Amino acid sequence: MTDVIKPPLKNILITGAGGALGSVLRESLRPYAETLSLHGRQSLGEVRENEKHFICDLADRDAVFEMLKGVDMVIHMGGAPRENTFQVILDSNIVGSYNIYEGARQAGVKRVIYASSVHAIGFYECTQTIDSNVPQRPDSLYGVSKTFVENLSRYYFDKFGIESVCLRIGSCFPKPTDRRMLATWLSYDDFTRMCVRSLLTPSVGHMIVYGNSKNSANFWDNTAVGYLGYHPQDSADEYAAEVYANTPMPDPLDPAVKYQGGKFAADGHFEDPKTN
Amino acid sequence: MTDVIKPPLKNILITGAGGALGSVLRESLRPYAETLSLHGRQSLGEVRENEKHFICDLADRDAVFEMLKGVDMVIHMGGAPRENTFQVILDSNIVGSYNIYEGARQAGVKRVIYASSVHAIGFYECTQTIDSNVPQRPDSLYGVSKTFVENLSRYYFDKFGIESVCLRIGSCFPKPTDRRMLATWLSYDDFTRMCVRSLLTPSVGHMIVYGNSKNSANFWDNTAVGYLGYHPQDSADEYAAEVYANTPMPDPLDPAVKYQGGKFAADGHFEDPKTN
Amino acid sequence: MTDVIKPPLKNILITGAGGALGSVLRESLRPYAETLSLHGRQSLGEVRENEKHFICDLADRDAVFEMLKGVDMVIHMGGAPRENTFQVILDSNIVGSYNIYEGARQAGVKRVIYASSVHAIGFYECTQTIDSNVPQRPDSLYGVSKTFVENLSRYYFDKFGIESVCLRIGSCFPKPTDRRMLATWLSYDDFTRMCVRSLLTPSVGHMIVYGNSKNSANFWDNTAVGYLGYHPQDSADEYAAEVYANTPMPDPLDPAVKYQGGKFAADGHFEDPKTN
Amino acid sequence: MTDVIKPPLKNILITGAGGALGSVLRESLRPYAETLSLHGRQSLGEVRENEKHFICDLADRDAVFEMLKGVDMVIHMGGAPRENTFQVILDSNIVGSYNIYEGARQAGVKRVIYASSVHAIGFYECTQTIDSNVPQRPDSLYGVSKTFVENLSRYYFDKFGIESVCLRIGSCFPKPTDRRMLATWLSYDDFTRMCVRSLLTPSVGHMIVYGNSKNSANFWDNTAVGYLGYHPQDSADEYAAEVYANTPMPDPLDPAVKYQGGKFAADGHFEDPKTN
Amino acid sequence: MTDVIKPPLKNILITGAGGALGSVLRESLRPYAETLSLHGRQSLGEVRENEKHFICDLADRDAVFEMLKGVDMVIHMGGAPRENTFQVILDSNIVGSYNIYEGARQAGVKRVIYASSVHAIGFYECTQTIDSNVPQRPDSLYGVSKTFVENLSRYYFDKFGIESVCLRIGSCFPKPTDRRMLATWLSYDDFTRMCVRSLLTPSVGHMIVYGNSKNSANFWDNTAVGYLGYHPQDSADEYAAEVYANTPMPDPLDPAVKYQGGKFAADGHFEDPKTN
Amino acid sequence: MTDVIKPPLKNILITGAGGALGSVLRESLRPYAETLSLHGRQSLGEVRENEKHFICDLADRDAVFEMLKGVDMVIHMGGAPRENTFQVILDSNIVGSYNIYEGARQAGVKRVIYASSVHAIGFYECTQTIDSNVPQRPDSLYGVSKTFVENLSRYYFDKFGIESVCLRIGSCFPKPTDRRMLATWLSYDDFTRMCVRSLLTPSVGHMIVYGNSKNSANFWDNTAVGYLGYHPQDSADEYAAEVYANTPMPDPLDPAVKYQGGKFAADGHFEDPKTN
Repeated sequence: MTDVIKPPLKNILITGAGGALGSVLRESLRPYAETLSLHGRQSLGEVRENEKHFICDLADRDAVFEMLKGVDMVIHMGGAPRENTFQVILDSNIVGSYNIYEGARQAGVKRVIYASSVHAIGFYECTQTIDSNVPQRPDSLYGVSKTFVENLSRYYFDKFGIESVCLRIGSCFPKPTDRRMLATWLSYDDFTRMCVRSLLTPSVGHMIVYGNSKNSANFWDNTAVGYLGYHPQDSADEYAAEVYANTPMPDPLDPAVKYQGGKFAADGHFEDPKTN
Repeated sequence: MTDVIKPPLKNILITGAGGALGSVLRESLRPYAETLSLHGRQSLGEVRENEKHFICDLADRDAVFEMLKGVDMVIHMGGAPRENTFQVILDSNIVGSYNIYEGARQAGVKRVIYASSVHAIGFYECTQTIDSNVPQRPDSLYGVSKTFVENLSRYYFDKFGIESVCLRIGSCFPKPTDRRMLATWLSYDDFTRMCVRSLLTPSVGHMIVYGNSKNSANFWDNTAVGYLGYHPQDSADEYAAEVYANTPMPDPLDPAVKYQGGKFAADGHFEDPKTN
Repeated sequence: MTDVIKPPLKNILITGAGGALGSVLRESLRPYAETLSLHGRQSLGEVRENEKHFICDLADRDAVFEMLKGVDMVIHMGGAPRENTFQVILDSNIVGSYNIYEGARQAGVKRVIYASSVHAIGFYECTQTIDSNVPQRPDSLYGVSKTFVENLSRYYFDKFGIESVCLRIGSCFPKPTDRRMLATWLSYDDFTRMCVRSLLTPSVGHMIVYGNSKNSANFWDNTAVGYLGYHPQDSADEYAAEVYANTPMPDPLDPAVKYQGGKFAADGHFEDPKTN
Repeated sequence: MTDVIKPPLKNILITGAGGALGSVLRESLRPYAETLSLHGRQSLGEVRENEKHFICDLADRDAVFEMLKGVDMVIHMGGAPRENTFQVILDSNIVGSYNIYEGARQAGVKRVIYASSVHAIGFYECTQTIDSNVPQRPDSLYGVSKTFVENLSRYYFDKFGIESVCLRIGSCFPKPTDRRMLATWLSYDDFTRMCVRSLLTPSVGHMIVYGNSKNSANFWDNTAVGYLGYHPQDSADEYAAEVYANTPMPDPLDPAVKYQGGKFAADGHFEDPKTN
Repeated sequence: MTDVIKPPLKNILITGAGGALGSVLRESLRPYAETLSLHGRQSLGEVRENEKHFICDLADRDAVFEMLKGVDMVIHMGGAPRENTFQVILDSNIVGSYNIYEGARQAGVKRVIYASSVHAIGFYECTQTIDSNVPQRPDSLYGVSKTFVENLSRYYFDKFGIESVCLRIGSCFPKPTDRRMLATWLSYDDFTRMCVRSLLTPSVGHMIVYGNSKNSANFWDNTAVGYLGYHPQDSADEYAAEVYANTPMPDPLDPAVKYQGGKFAADGHFEDPKTN
Repeated sequence: MTDVIKPPLKNILITGAGGALGSVLRESLRPYAETLSLHGRQSLGEVRENEKHFICDLADRDAVFEMLKGVDMVIHMGGAPRENTFQVILDSNIVGSYNIYEGARQAGVKRVIYASSVHAIGFYECTQTIDSNVPQRPDSLYGVSKTFVENLSRYYFDKFGIESVCLRIGSCFPKPTDRRMLATWLSYDDFTRMCVRSLLTPSVGHMIVYGNSKNSANFWDNTAVGYLGYHPQDSADEYAAEVYANTPMPDPLDPAVKYQGGKFAADGHFEDPKTN
């Protein structure tokens, strides 16, 4: 199901297109839309054919509303990508995502694919196999903001019919580099596969699914992803020997080892310069 | 587990053997029984070696009782294959299936493989991953009759020890032709595999399982099928590009798109000529 | 919540109004409707003020359709009240109930309160505490017909928006007379309370609830009844000493003792005169 | 368990003490603390014996941090009490509650009793009996903010050990005034009982419980409240006849009738003056 | 349902009859059997009318087998009543209980009421509402032995049809004396009620139920007890004010406060003299 | 993930190393530890390089404590391998395993991999797909002892932090030899894979997982094994035709066919010579 299909969508907007994942999708989603709208906080480089660029802060409501006009579906990855001060999280992830959803409502956008995160449920222990319906247990302010958007999107679907797929992404990097990532790793190609399936599936309502590759190690019961038809092709297993060789035997009682969120669950409160 | 095994059964009866699926099984199940009893409402053509033919209406109790004599196991596919007037559903599916089960009890038949259907649970949404224990939610009078037989067979097992496997068949056709079938498609070969496993498994009690191929897209948690050892070999994925090319972008709020039963869930009440 | 409230409904139809429970409701529901339509297979005696009588067989579609005209809500108790031959169950309970639901659809009736039964789940063991979502396990052909109507009503709600409350009535008699009834007994007054709450509750969708009084012994998790606000006032406990004195120590391995359906689960197949 | 117990706590802070519920607790919790700290946005009137008053906006971090010093436990009711513009919800409920929790962490406060709301799960249907573990389904931006604080408090317990009881309050008013409130009503006295039990229970960890009185009608499975030992004494049933007399027969398909959140689930997006 | 019923049983054996609970049952169960067999490790005082006394160690197989002859049902409370060295637990609770069950099998005893304990699940947190089906989590070697007998009794029912009711007793004392017991307390009279219901209920199969009184505070979902018809009459609530007055504010992070097993969960390994 | 990784552990102890499985692990685990300590009741033959041998009875506490000194992790397979008299089960499996766990605690061993068994849950029917959280249902005294150790290990983790992986091994033999083993078979190589993953996984807490190969037929929902990253490579399917050819059509009502424990569930009580 990885054959490219002739452009079914007129205009897909990718927020946070300047980041690592954004660069991946900017390339891999080209065939799926007539126009690829790209959002970044800074210049995204050359404007390629069929691309439209929007440079703004997601907290800037008017700018966000403007770029949502004429869009069919959004892949929303913009915002702070890791723990930060509450003020940064608030502006980038909470206010920014509200602007996306409220703008989508006003502009008639049909569907949002949201880059949620393992950190929305990072305080479950690795030995607990969880599905998409367990209560959220964020491991950081960053994770709290992810649960905020999951719930906000549920609200926009229940009341306004705007569909969402929330992808709880594990560790989306070129390759796994520690033992926990042998379970949570999502390859770039598999990430693209998830996005494509989220765009093409006929009716998604409001879904929350986990995002990892076909790793032997895994702590998620991802049956909910079934309807999307996501079929991972890569596996962290190929890197297992390398990872074991390069990393020390961990302490099983260390929170960074015990909890699904890893280091996020172990870290203390983010130093907020404004309060000091 | 697809090797053919020497005939373990003396006499298998296939009802509805004149239909598309019946023709498939008439061929593929030959090696599994010494005698293949075939039932149809009309002539089934030439009587081949080791075959016995029975032409009757399933609502005809005496005829049904007659053909069950000496039978080990039944594959029960007979009856109206889609929505119809209540009278037709009543005669063909409700009375007809009662005759099969009551006749099986009187004749000492050990096991029935029943061709149930996705339409027994067709009013669940596609985004809901359901297992075999969810309450039934039929999408049509046809679907209601499927739930009737599922419950009737449960009764005949609980009280009389007659085993049943109810196969909730998705879309059993030569190939998937719309986007919903990318999830529900069951290839003819995989259908045969399900039937063979249902015949050979040592002890099945009363089971309800879902019937689809190894499609990436799927809305069923089919863990219950595990004990049967059913191992699908085909996949709708091979037809995905073709299906996407040939079908328009669907409206996610259309009941035919939103519900697992597809068009059955969207259709109105079947025009019953007798009431007009 | 037992105060009588001024007639909120114009016309309530009670089917099976000639039976024991029908006589109870004929009296107790008088204050809840301007017109009480009563159905029986035989004369219901004198036509009292505000009553309308309909004498017919429920399998007679035209007669059923006629009596549903102008009705707001139906309390559907008509049909065979216990195990019988398949033909009787088919005509009275299956065809008869289809006529009620299809007639309700055509006549614009809003809600049906259906007298389902413990026998829809009678093959669960008494030690299993079950809720309303467990798969049905009928203990008789009578019980199979109850599951048929529960599923039919689900279909009429899912597709046509006709609301139903299915009351799985335990043992509705003047008083409990054996040890099993210490758990399943539903007093006449509590039965009325369930019906009143089912009529008055603002929005019921499709519900299945259990019907028993406030007995200490109980094998149902009836949380689903919560929204109805049913508050039983009677208890089988008052009769416990009497029941223990009058009944022998039972054999715990007797199916009539072990299963929730009691004697129904233990009885063999009903002798069907037509087949002999 | 309603006897007043000698002051076990040195200093309880009540936020939002100027509202209706705040006035109730200001009186009823007097015996439970040596000092009652009261927060309001405007003057709270005369400072009574053992009271300390704090007048500030919860979005004012420094002021909030100041008033948390020396506090044992907080009853946090402050913030916008119903749907409002996103900006108001953001400042009052999201930023304000973050300040409470982060301030509690810095000040060493042990426990927060948070006034969450039915609107955190208002998009479940009334016929669905839900417990505390179902995924949140907010019915408004107000409800989204309630889920935010529930998740934030989970985070502060999982990482920092600050205990919370989130009370999902139904309808806390002098008496029920519509049919939905016959299920959701929480009397003022029962609200006090919940707060007292939440203060006194030895170890609460992080709990989410529902807050209503002993009403016959109910759509919550509140088993989780068991450990608190909350024992409601009042019931909406006493007002049922009055409510039925004063309110019209509702339309079961009206979202305000169908969903647990009532009118909040039916209302459109709050008019945000800044966008017009 | 507390009226005494004429002796329905010929011979009930109570093991551990010399302890506090044994003395209670020795008195309260007199009317329920023609003969009351009493077991103790030491003299049980005067042999009253209709009593038979057996003085032995439960690890003495021959003696145990002897006293089970002619017995209808056993109430098995004998063995070490709290944490002890492994050797004592092994002899008294593991070997002793095996002797009871194997002896019951050989003597044709129909049912055993087993005094299990909260300590079989004592490592669940107080805030977790658990039912009878959660995996066991013993808090001590004593608790491990309780799970052993629960599983042994399951085996004897599944294979040999010997019925058991395992009562997970909370704190059965004259009155609650600490805050945890406000949830776990079981009055002597309610304990008798549980035993009587366990003896009289027609068919119990293998059940595990929780044993506490009608306390407002509670951490068990005891729906499984429903079928027994156990109806507690006492409540720890009456002692709440006294308990609060006499006990200090506990530390919520102390294991003895946090876990259901209380002090057992907090205690270290029992000093085993043989290893020192 | 099957590449051998440089010795991550100093000293692994294998109990029961003289049995069939022990011989497998003695060979296959060589690369995973600097020292392989091997325990047997009789001579284990030549002491190979890096091996240490301990010949003793597991009921001999001092000997067991001695051999646990300096050990990192234990693979505990010692004890009676099938049904036996209670005395043998008691000494070998109950006392013996207590000695292992208590010795591990005193010696500071970090983790135990325990060879539990399908017989801990052997009384579930084959048609029931069960996960690791269902209540145990042992099929023999042997099975009861397996549940004892599962619960004992839970206790040692909850109280003392000693990690355990309990592997509920199906049928670990050179090849499947009857129809039930087509579901339960675990190849020697896959058994090694499970052990290696149990040794290497960073944090296992207390886990119970099922042990079988990649067989099409299966009655376990083994999602819990996910986190271990166990990836079976063998399948009983290869032997299916052979098994079918060599074994007769079974009777579905035979307990040895109906229950997951197979013959163990069907066998009567083990003849205990001491009682005769």
